[in-house]
Amino acid sequence: MSLARSTETSGPLSFEPRSGIAVSAPPESRRDQVEATVAAARACAAHVAARPPASRAAWLSAVADAVQERSAQLCELADAETALGVPRLTGELARAAGALRFYGAVAEEGSWLDAVIDHARDGVPDLRRVNVPLGPIAVFGASNFPFGFGVLGHDTASAIASGCPVVVKAHPAHPRLSAALGELALSTLAAAGAPSGTFGLVAGFDAGAALVTHPAVRAVGFTGSQAGGVALWKLAAGRPVPIPVFAEMGTVNTAVLTRAGAGRAAEVAAGFVDSFTLGMGQFCTKPGLLLAPAGSAMIDHVRNALATRAPSGWLLTASIARAYTTGLERLLESGARTVHACAPPADGWAAPATVLEVDIAALQAGSVLLEECFGPVALVAEYADDTELDGALHALPGSLAAAVHSGGPEDPELAGLVACLAGRTGRVVVDGWPTGVALGWAQHHGGPWPATTNSSASSVGASALTRFVRPVAYQDAPDSALPEPIRELNPWGVPRRVDGVRA
Amino acid sequence: MSLARSTETSGPLSFEPRSGIAVSAPPESRRDQVEATVAAARACAAHVAARPPASRAAWLSAVADAVQERSAQLCELADAETALGVPRLTGELARAAGALRFYGAVAEEGSWLDAVIDHARDGVPDLRRVNVPLGPIAVFGASNFPFGFGVLGHDTASAIASGCPVVVKAHPAHPRLSAALGELALSTLAAAGAPSGTFGLVAGFDAGAALVTHPAVRAVGFTGSQAGGVALWKLAAGRPVPIPVFAEMGTVNTAVLTRAGAGRAAEVAAGFVDSFTLGMGQFCTKPGLLLAPAGSAMIDHVRNALATRAPSGWLLTASIARAYTTGLERLLESGARTVHACAPPADGWAAPATVLEVDIAALQAGSVLLEECFGPVALVAEYADDTELDGALHALPGSLAAAVHSGGPEDPELAGLVACLAGRTGRVVVDGWPTGVALGWAQHHGGPWPATTNSSASSVGASALTRFVRPVAYQDAPDSALPEPIRELNPWGVPRRVDGVRA
Repeated sequence: MSLARSTETSGPLSFEPRSGIAVSAPPESRRDQVEATVAAARACAAHVAARPPASRAAWLSAVADAVQERSAQLCELADAETALGVPRLTGELARAAGALRFYGAVAEEGSWLDAVIDHARDGVPDLRRVNVPLGPIAVFGASNFPFGFGVLGHDTASAIASGCPVVVKAHPAHPRLSAALGELALSTLAAAGAPSGTFGLVAGFDAGAALVTHPAVRAVGFTGSQAGGVALWKLAAGRPVPIPVFAEMGTVNTAVLTRAGAGRAAEVAAGFVDSFTLGMGQFCTKPGLLLAPAGSAMIDHVRNALATRAPSGWLLTASIARAYTTGLERLLESGARTVHACAPPADGWAAPATVLEVDIAALQAGSVLLEECFGPVALVAEYADDTELDGALHALPGSLAAAVHSGGPEDPELAGLVACLAGRTGRVVVDGWPTGVALGWAQHHGGPWPATTNSSASSVGASALTRFVRPVAYQDAPDSALPEPIRELNPWGVPRRVDGVRA
Repeated sequence: MSLARSTETSGPLSFEPRSGIAVSAPPESRRDQVEATVAAARACAAHVAARPPASRAAWLSAVADAVQERSAQLCELADAETALGVPRLTGELARAAGALRFYGAVAEEGSWLDAVIDHARDGVPDLRRVNVPLGPIAVFGASNFPFGFGVLGHDTASAIASGCPVVVKAHPAHPRLSAALGELALSTLAAAGAPSGTFGLVAGFDAGAALVTHPAVRAVGFTGSQAGGVALWKLAAGRPVPIPVFAEMGTVNTAVLTRAGAGRAAEVAAGFVDSFTLGMGQFCTKPGLLLAPAGSAMIDHVRNALATRAPSGWLLTASIARAYTTGLERLLESGARTVHACAPPADGWAAPATVLEVDIAALQAGSVLLEECFGPVALVAEYADDTELDGALHALPGSLAAAVHSGGPEDPELAGLVACLAGRTGRVVVDGWPTGVALGWAQHHGGPWPATTNSSASSVGASALTRFVRPVAYQDAPDSALPEPIRELNPWGVPRRVDGVRA
């Protein structure tokens, strides 16, 4: 690993992971700049909240158009800072643009407002309830999805869709891309008629802490590491007025091959390797552990698959590369044994894609073996019987996703395994891999601690909007004093429950 | 205040607030008893979750019947421990029985499951999402509503309705009633076919802490003081696996009389006194602060109303009585002046119902004047102009409820005041008082910190169920491995969104 630092620069740097070469990056935000950005968000919050969802959808759609128009140059810039490759980034950008439009459409549909009207009866007052936007939201994007979970990713899009201004803290792994996306958002939102302050961008560690502790900031969206998410969660809990932190963090996502599925071991091994090395293993949904029946020869199949595929590439940052090296060492010290390690590229923040095997009895609650190691490494353990499998499953911490590879729909173990894993995860995948996260009404991207700080929240899918609102009930208020969704004539045309009946 | 302690008893005591005389109360739970109770809850959790909502509704309905059949003796016992009066308690018991049935009916209706199906299309997998019960819930009831927020109150009913076993920590203010309700629940639930462990009861401070820190407990419902709620919230956050704490705590609930409503000052003063002295001011929704226009002679009207009504009674516990005395002193030290104080009864934990006046400029953020003083005291401040009113409104901390008394629906100040208060509270009442909390689909009983630890949660109303579930997505799972609500043929007949369309 080499880390060449440009001698001409003194401020923040943008690094090229393939070489470690740095160029100058936009400066960190000064405290007064953070203050001004949050003040603008606060000042416009009521205006953003009062705009009909259709307006917010139009703003987000305009941003999506602008991003797609500049796809080539944005992806080139993103590739320079992440080494994720232009093809992958081009697809990610297109999906992120689709997400901006999707959250706008969800906002317009209006179910997320959860509008309920109970007309007065028998001495009980007229009561109406609707979700109202929380106000300015601080968004911390992730290093590994510079578009999908970056400046204009799911958190930003769903927060604006829900009627909240957003202040994004730029990720230091892609500072120039963040700045470019920020400028694009600012100019596009202004042209689309969004109130000034609807979107803001700050940079720097101190700026991030200032956001989370700022009295005007009402919630935090975060995607990234355990350490980062928990630190923000604690910071927010220590405020005089604590605020919710929706941190989506990395976990070990377990895949189980059933006994009836053992005949598919070679195919499963190939899929496993493809999935855990995707994006150089830098997915929060990476399958980090495969439990396979003894006798399936899974260790051999995985060794062959990894050796045949021989994925290679670079990690996103120097610190991720260092943590990967350290993480591999910790796994090996904890009883894991190397099955196969690929040769990494020579330069930059390259990392060896690696499969480890581990005795299933070593998978105990609290073990390092069940902590995420961010990067292209995964563990395989073989189980001899139900007792061994159950023991491992009950030791699993909460996760974002889990998978079962079965012998087909009639597999007698399938329903039990799905139910068991559902108790420990946010998404259970059958006969597939968790690394693809489709965007839609039914998606849930979250899960029990430590996958997230709030297991009821999703950072992908239609329900993402509801993180940034809270209900308010109005008792005997005249129509003119009510928010539009719960006025008698339903001017926004949103779905409602009226006197107990869904309409 | 007198506190006679029976010399024959050595364990926990049950006090009669009217006299301070104590009788023996059920013993505190030993650690092994707490462990056994939680173990039973854990062991039955999957069974409770798997029962159709109609079964859970039947269990709750059976409990409601049992409680109502024993209404007279339960209310007599409750009155002995709370001095809230048999008529009030009889009404509360009937409403609590209604709530048990209501949450069962909400569970059966099924919207709270938020079942969503996105069928596979264009290479996107089949995705289905449904809310699943969290598992054992620890419930801490309140002193002031021994039925409504007691052993069988809203938290217990909504948690069981959502498919979670419950372990209640008995409130020390009514230990004998708690034990009686607990026994009733245990026998009735068993007879109704609920799995053993669906309900459990423990007693004692240490038992409560043990519940919150127990690995098998998945969430906490709490109703009570700021200090108690925040302490449990911190305890839960310090667990190796933190869990959500839904604490509904006391706040200062503000009422504003508009200028156009000034002609109603005498009527509003009477309503204010009736509301803030209801249940000896021991309501979390007590209106603790009235802002009235200068020239409305509100101070005089309130003085007259309190002197005329002269409410008298007892507080629930010795510690509440002590805190009330201390709280009054703190308010007076902070610039409040006594308008009128009633003469309390001579014995027991009597307390003087009191109105204080305060200069509106003293209502600054962080002031003791804006902290709840639990008991029959309220403040009145007069505002001379918009600047003074706005200053006070912007200093208000979050609250459970707020009220506006207007000059009618056309009052030009009404909409602005409702919107302003909606930004700081969970429920805005127009031309009424917040002390009545109707149960229904549209109710929201919660609010921004410090009203609750989670402003998206409600402890009353149909949405109370959703506190105790989390979403799980199932990807490409066969029907036989799916929970009932998201199986293709919808065996539970719940409302769903299918391919984006609400059905």
